Amino acid sequence: MVTPQTQRRKYRDNLETGTTSGVCDGYLQANMITLPSKYAFEFLLFCQRNPKPCPIVDVLEAGQVNPRIADADIRTDLPKYRIYKNGELEKETLDLKDVWQEDYVTFLLGCSFTFEKALVERGISLLHQEMDLVVPMYQTNIPCEEAGQFNGNMVVSMRAIRKEELDQTIAITSKFPHAHGAPIHVGHPSEIGIQDIEKPDYGEFPPFDEEERIPVFWACGVTPQYVGLNVKPEIMITHAPGHMLITDQKE
Amino acid sequence: MVTPQTQRRKYRDNLETGTTSGVCDGYLQANMITLPSKYAFEFLLFCQRNPKPCPIVDVLEAGQVNPRIADADIRTDLPKYRIYKNGELEKETLDLKDVWQEDYVTFLLGCSFTFEKALVERGISLLHQEMDLVVPMYQTNIPCEEAGQFNGNMVVSMRAIRKEELDQTIAITSKFPHAHGAPIHVGHPSEIGIQDIEKPDYGEFPPFDEEERIPVFWACGVTPQYVGLNVKPEIMITHAPGHMLITDQKE
Repeated sequence: MVTPQTQRRKYRDNLETGTTSGVCDGYLQANMITLPSKYAFEFLLFCQRNPKPCPIVDVLEAGQVNPRIADADIRTDLPKYRIYKNGELEKETLDLKDVWQEDYVTFLLGCSFTFEKALVERGISLLHQEMDLVVPMYQTNIPCEEAGQFNGNMVVSMRAIRKEELDQTIAITSKFPHAHGAPIHVGHPSEIGIQDIEKPDYGEFPPFDEEERIPVFWACGVTPQYVGLNVKPEIMITHAPGHMLITDQKE
Repeated sequence: MVTPQTQRRKYRDNLETGTTSGVCDGYLQANMITLPSKYAFEFLLFCQRNPKPCPIVDVLEAGQVNPRIADADIRTDLPKYRIYKNGELEKETLDLKDVWQEDYVTFLLGCSFTFEKALVERGISLLHQEMDLVVPMYQTNIPCEEAGQFNGNMVVSMRAIRKEELDQTIAITSKFPHAHGAPIHVGHPSEIGIQDIEKPDYGEFPPFDEEERIPVFWACGVTPQYVGLNVKPEIMITHAPGHMLITDQKE
């Protein structure tokens, strides 16, 4: 198998630019959000107050480009980035060499790839994976704990779980606090402000038999992006969806 | 029993100024550290990277004076404060009205009163309490994870525990991650850089029979104060030792 070091080198040299789903199996992958340092305290506090959608796995202080959890350069070693200006997507890019500033602070957050893998390995059926769909995500009416300028409602992801596998699913995911942890809701989308489960705000809905499966909702790593963009920072940089940082840490 | 609200009012009006040890039994007490906002991100990150000595229970952003965990004014409702300038103690004071600035950020951290109470309630003998001594504290050679300017070695507190109560002591304190959690070392002070256990850097040493008891060390809330003063900030404010914030939260 290709090591994370070798794989990141391919991204650095733009020899590969695809999603990291299933790449370097067994190594932790992380979401990335970069902001100018003036936002750093309030954003870190937001993550600290909302650990389920925003599980911090590493922070790169101003001037740092090498994470502690990967022998990598954060400016080049992800396959693809998104650059937002004043809350709007400006472009996708393969590296950050042209835009990087010395005062940028980068937050690396745990991602649900980790717990999905743990579920599948224990025989839990994940319908969206079986149907090869992007997991559906929804805006909710669950307010996050605000921190300074950062506030907004939680975004959740939904997985339709077999009823007889529900208890085990909850037990397994609760062991991954650094990857969103236990579900935040089971069964009744309208109770958390989701009007039509068939129309997710992001991703794709996998049709399922309600006799057989039950919708289960987890805090989602899209939340901090959504909340960050609300503030309309002059610049905010993220990984492109599905194009994560592959770390050197075993899951 | 006096409520936290009534007790804090006495501190506000300077009707009482003593330590909070044993006061408003059953309510969480917290360490306080206040710094100008330019230090806030790095100090919060230091706490986030070193949760055992620095368990965050609340943060007051710039402009805020009311904690979330107590219906209190942080500038007046502790019995006594310490004001440090450029890393040196300037004075103790009964309130902060004269020195408070709009950009100050306050960190409230869990304290060992919480786990000591849990131990005593379960019949564990705490020698320093029985001898009415201040718990002994030591500088160690255990480096904290640094964050920006903030770095230094961990300060630990020591309790001489009966050998037959050691397992239970570890089990109980590990259930209080917001009050320093499980011990960081058991039995061999020289292994963590303590040359003479009879000469603590802070507090008082309770002589004990080594056949009967074993020294057990916990990460200590003095660590963030020590590390904060290392940076020599133009101003840093803390509670006076033992004169904590009494919160409205049950332990």
